[in-house]
Amino acid sequence: MIDFALFGIGFIGSVHLKCIASNPRTRLTWVYDVNRQAAEKAATSTGARVAESPEQALQAADVDAALIASSTNTHADLLTASVKAGKAVLCEKPIDLDIARVRACVAEVEPAGVPIGIGFNRRFDPNHREVYGLIRGGKIGKVEMAIFTNRGPAPPPISYVKVSGGQMRDQTVHFFDLARFILGDEPVEVFAAGACLVDPAIGEAGDIDTSMVTLRMQSGALCLIDSSRRTGYGYDERIEVFGSAGLAESERQRPRGVSYDSGDKIVQDGLHPGWFERMEPTYGLSLDAFVTALEEGKAPSPGLADGLKAQVLAEAAVKSLRENRPVRVEEI
Amino acid sequence: MIDFALFGIGFIGSVHLKCIASNPRTRLTWVYDVNRQAAEKAATSTGARVAESPEQALQAADVDAALIASSTNTHADLLTASVKAGKAVLCEKPIDLDIARVRACVAEVEPAGVPIGIGFNRRFDPNHREVYGLIRGGKIGKVEMAIFTNRGPAPPPISYVKVSGGQMRDQTVHFFDLARFILGDEPVEVFAAGACLVDPAIGEAGDIDTSMVTLRMQSGALCLIDSSRRTGYGYDERIEVFGSAGLAESERQRPRGVSYDSGDKIVQDGLHPGWFERMEPTYGLSLDAFVTALEEGKAPSPGLADGLKAQVLAEAAVKSLRENRPVRVEEI
Amino acid sequence: MIDFALFGIGFIGSVHLKCIASNPRTRLTWVYDVNRQAAEKAATSTGARVAESPEQALQAADVDAALIASSTNTHADLLTASVKAGKAVLCEKPIDLDIARVRACVAEVEPAGVPIGIGFNRRFDPNHREVYGLIRGGKIGKVEMAIFTNRGPAPPPISYVKVSGGQMRDQTVHFFDLARFILGDEPVEVFAAGACLVDPAIGEAGDIDTSMVTLRMQSGALCLIDSSRRTGYGYDERIEVFGSAGLAESERQRPRGVSYDSGDKIVQDGLHPGWFERMEPTYGLSLDAFVTALEEGKAPSPGLADGLKAQVLAEAAVKSLRENRPVRVEEI
Amino acid sequence: MIDFALFGIGFIGSVHLKCIASNPRTRLTWVYDVNRQAAEKAATSTGARVAESPEQALQAADVDAALIASSTNTHADLLTASVKAGKAVLCEKPIDLDIARVRACVAEVEPAGVPIGIGFNRRFDPNHREVYGLIRGGKIGKVEMAIFTNRGPAPPPISYVKVSGGQMRDQTVHFFDLARFILGDEPVEVFAAGACLVDPAIGEAGDIDTSMVTLRMQSGALCLIDSSRRTGYGYDERIEVFGSAGLAESERQRPRGVSYDSGDKIVQDGLHPGWFERMEPTYGLSLDAFVTALEEGKAPSPGLADGLKAQVLAEAAVKSLRENRPVRVEEI
Repeated sequence: MIDFALFGIGFIGSVHLKCIASNPRTRLTWVYDVNRQAAEKAATSTGARVAESPEQALQAADVDAALIASSTNTHADLLTASVKAGKAVLCEKPIDLDIARVRACVAEVEPAGVPIGIGFNRRFDPNHREVYGLIRGGKIGKVEMAIFTNRGPAPPPISYVKVSGGQMRDQTVHFFDLARFILGDEPVEVFAAGACLVDPAIGEAGDIDTSMVTLRMQSGALCLIDSSRRTGYGYDERIEVFGSAGLAESERQRPRGVSYDSGDKIVQDGLHPGWFERMEPTYGLSLDAFVTALEEGKAPSPGLADGLKAQVLAEAAVKSLRENRPVRVEEI
Repeated sequence: MIDFALFGIGFIGSVHLKCIASNPRTRLTWVYDVNRQAAEKAATSTGARVAESPEQALQAADVDAALIASSTNTHADLLTASVKAGKAVLCEKPIDLDIARVRACVAEVEPAGVPIGIGFNRRFDPNHREVYGLIRGGKIGKVEMAIFTNRGPAPPPISYVKVSGGQMRDQTVHFFDLARFILGDEPVEVFAAGACLVDPAIGEAGDIDTSMVTLRMQSGALCLIDSSRRTGYGYDERIEVFGSAGLAESERQRPRGVSYDSGDKIVQDGLHPGWFERMEPTYGLSLDAFVTALEEGKAPSPGLADGLKAQVLAEAAVKSLRENRPVRVEEI
Repeated sequence: MIDFALFGIGFIGSVHLKCIASNPRTRLTWVYDVNRQAAEKAATSTGARVAESPEQALQAADVDAALIASSTNTHADLLTASVKAGKAVLCEKPIDLDIARVRACVAEVEPAGVPIGIGFNRRFDPNHREVYGLIRGGKIGKVEMAIFTNRGPAPPPISYVKVSGGQMRDQTVHFFDLARFILGDEPVEVFAAGACLVDPAIGEAGDIDTSMVTLRMQSGALCLIDSSRRTGYGYDERIEVFGSAGLAESERQRPRGVSYDSGDKIVQDGLHPGWFERMEPTYGLSLDAFVTALEEGKAPSPGLADGLKAQVLAEAAVKSLRENRPVRVEEI
Repeated sequence: MIDFALFGIGFIGSVHLKCIASNPRTRLTWVYDVNRQAAEKAATSTGARVAESPEQALQAADVDAALIASSTNTHADLLTASVKAGKAVLCEKPIDLDIARVRACVAEVEPAGVPIGIGFNRRFDPNHREVYGLIRGGKIGKVEMAIFTNRGPAPPPISYVKVSGGQMRDQTVHFFDLARFILGDEPVEVFAAGACLVDPAIGEAGDIDTSMVTLRMQSGALCLIDSSRRTGYGYDERIEVFGSAGLAESERQRPRGVSYDSGDKIVQDGLHPGWFERMEPTYGLSLDAFVTALEEGKAPSPGLADGLKAQVLAEAAVKSLRENRPVRVEEI
């Protein structure tokens, strides 16, 4: 049984709270949020205690691990504090929006050898995992091209866009991680083409909402990540991996399988309304994998280095967007 | 909050236990099983009390409703006892394998006006419900033909087959109910063609494992239910409704959406391994509908009459199999 | 090179004319039709000669085979005349609407040993053939159930319905043949449930437009043929064969593969507008197989006996409809 | 009736010959090929005459249009000669591999006002056309992203690769045209990422076999063309267009629709074996559109300017590959 202190119980913190509560191998013992009332409500429903400060929870004997789901700007400090307190950490991405600070944080906490996991939950999607397995099983042969499609139903509020770090650091970063993971390969060069086509306000905030990022991988393979902030037809996430022996696809998912034929058309139920409905199961699977790593004394995966690498790729993409040229990852 | 006494914590009882535990509007207060140890284990994990006898639970003040998930031969007695105790009932199907006893039980309990629900969980499958909605919305027009496909991955043990009442009463009965529900129509004549093709031991036990049952509905529509005890390719349940304005299908469901192209073939992930993996979500939805009915003071649906009608159809099918002729439902 | 005399150049005769013209192994030398003008037009475009009478064409030295595509009531006579003239025959189904006359015709022509093919073109559909191949290759194991779906877009004119022999003899008969062919098995008992749901005028003409026919096969397998005269969503023909080792399906065909996602729906291009657009390629394939049989000195397949057997099944179905009971094929 | 002289009866010339022969509005009157025997064989089967020289055919009174399907290096000369002879032209792409020569040729022939069509047959694929129609009908809204997938089953022989002009000019060029046509938009910047992953011999010949080309369109939309010379799973061509109102896809095509469920997999028939089986119907449709243009006195589409523009894009892509940077189309 792993005892958790949960930091942050906003939307994503509540998701983690549910996962901890329903996993038979985990228990929520402490909860902290800047909004004390919210923390108390969460505590009541789970039997956890409310911490006066993060430190209190981190010093508690009945805490094995910290789950950091607070606002982005607090991640690095909480991560460092947890490690100093000797507590394992499962931290929501990103570590920080400032790559320099990420590097400093990694440099500081890594030597401690405390188990640190980063919340790239998409790695645990059973469909994507099957593609991962097909590659590992040699079914695809040598990977030559891959396409990651990643399109949200509607843009986040402009207030969020402004502090999000931008599409590369906020949305596409998940797929920088996924590309590394699924392909088992490292990007060496990034070319990002972006545009503001969905909402001019996003452009005014200095961001883009539509992008195609081409990655050249160490193996020579080419990889595309296309991202949009707004589909109008639900949440559309797909992976396609093409290699010397075949093609594997993690297909577009429909929550229901109903079709209706009439006239000269066939109408099917469409996609999940949002990324959360599509990806919800991955949070529990991600927690489970983290717990298994702790129990088996292995390093959690994805780990701190994965968090850093995905963010480096996001920085390379941002630089490519700015300078309209392919950027070597080593430039970052 | 509806307080439940649960009778029976075998496989299906455990499923109901989980549903009661995770529904915010229900609480498990008492549990009874002939296997006392099993009852105690269930009680421990939920905070419920173990009843010495069904009566103890039914007399308890903190019981609003009985959930009957014990062995089939106890259903009628428990149903009667619950109603006498003034407790609402959600009863697993069938009411009893003996249609005379079902009728006697219905005659006895119905006048009391106690809310009784029957556990035809498939009615709550979101895919089937969408077909139901398309019909109600006029999208299919006047229904003319319907096909219900119902194929299990592997036959149950022969020991179970022998006490199951046979394929019509045990397996196909769910689809007699579903046909009535989805189409909103009553069968008036049944022709059943059956065979023992899967396992000769099933035939030796006097049962069949493969069947096509044609129903002629009051409206004139024709309806087929095909059932098999063994697919070898997972659990295959589908509905197709054809009418004057179009065709609606509740399609075959795949738990994962991955495809792999290689050579001259495309290989996709297949179906759910068993009926439970496919139908698991319907138990919670079924409980939820029952609770809503209680809260709103409405009769639960499916109710006692639905339980009886599905069983009458099963009897008509059994008679048709025996006499190799179409049987009018009113003959039963 | 096989030289053909074509009898009848109505709709289906024109289809055969095109097939003969475009097959490098066949040549149209004579054409006959009661409508002389139509025959002349056909002759002009192909270089064939117009026969004054069927006999003239059948006596011609430059005729190897007769293709009989004239009206149904002339089939038996032309078939007999062709065989007497020693010409091979490819005859459109049915041989005659009167089963007694079919039997008499078969008894008369069979001893001559002249190659006779019957135009059950659906046997040559590449999709259906693949299912046939999967069965023959052992991929399905022992066949246990099969479903043949057969739904036309719109009913034929009432004038045609009146002389068609009825849905069983006119529409379903193709699938009686297909079931025998695909499954490699013979029906022993037929139960037909029919209704007039599409157009009351069809019922007034003594016919049905909607039916489900259950066949019990010699092997024990159960088979359903469902037929409708009107879909409203194009031509819908499918085959599904279920056996001890798996399920094979010849799927619904869409002429175009385009999909459009918008809102909460996915809209796909629908089915072929009619049976002809769906089945057109099978005519050429059917002719080709007939020619190959002639060249190799083998009996054409499907042959005369196949034509008779499919019609016997149609009669059994008609008897079953009339008497509302399963009918043994040997009763016919 | 349009009378054609056909230049070249190699593989693609034979395809055009068949189209001319089977179109009721076209007639083949002359045929020329450097291989006189091949020309004679083609003439025999169609009733056309063999020309001693291209000039003889172009001077003939019974020639309305030249169909140029000879080797690439002869296209520009034949095109010029045809125009000088006042004959309409349907010319296989490319006009020439040397963009300077293409421009010179265009400059020379354009002022004559003779109708000239370029053989970008993919524009006539009914699936792609449907996407085109969805865009024109406003169903997609404002286009934001498009992905063109273009993967051949196996690389051409190295001897061909060496004279082909390379993947951009030989394979991807079709999709430069298709992108312009389907989207109704012009690329302004091209970034091409390429690799030699399929066969080292292709790399030794100075070419690539795998590429992802990003186009930035005038409208701001982003567009990807991914090309591979070898799939191992047949011919894979798809288009996906994403816009403010929805997503349209011209899906992967399977020549047969058969599926087989067994164990935990569903196996479907795969794709067409090669591009020709997939694209064969487009040649006749392309010819038909050209003839219609001539009959209606309109400029054929795609026309000469389209041929030039697609080749300019190929040049921009080649430059981008060489210099590893986005190239403005106006640089070419």
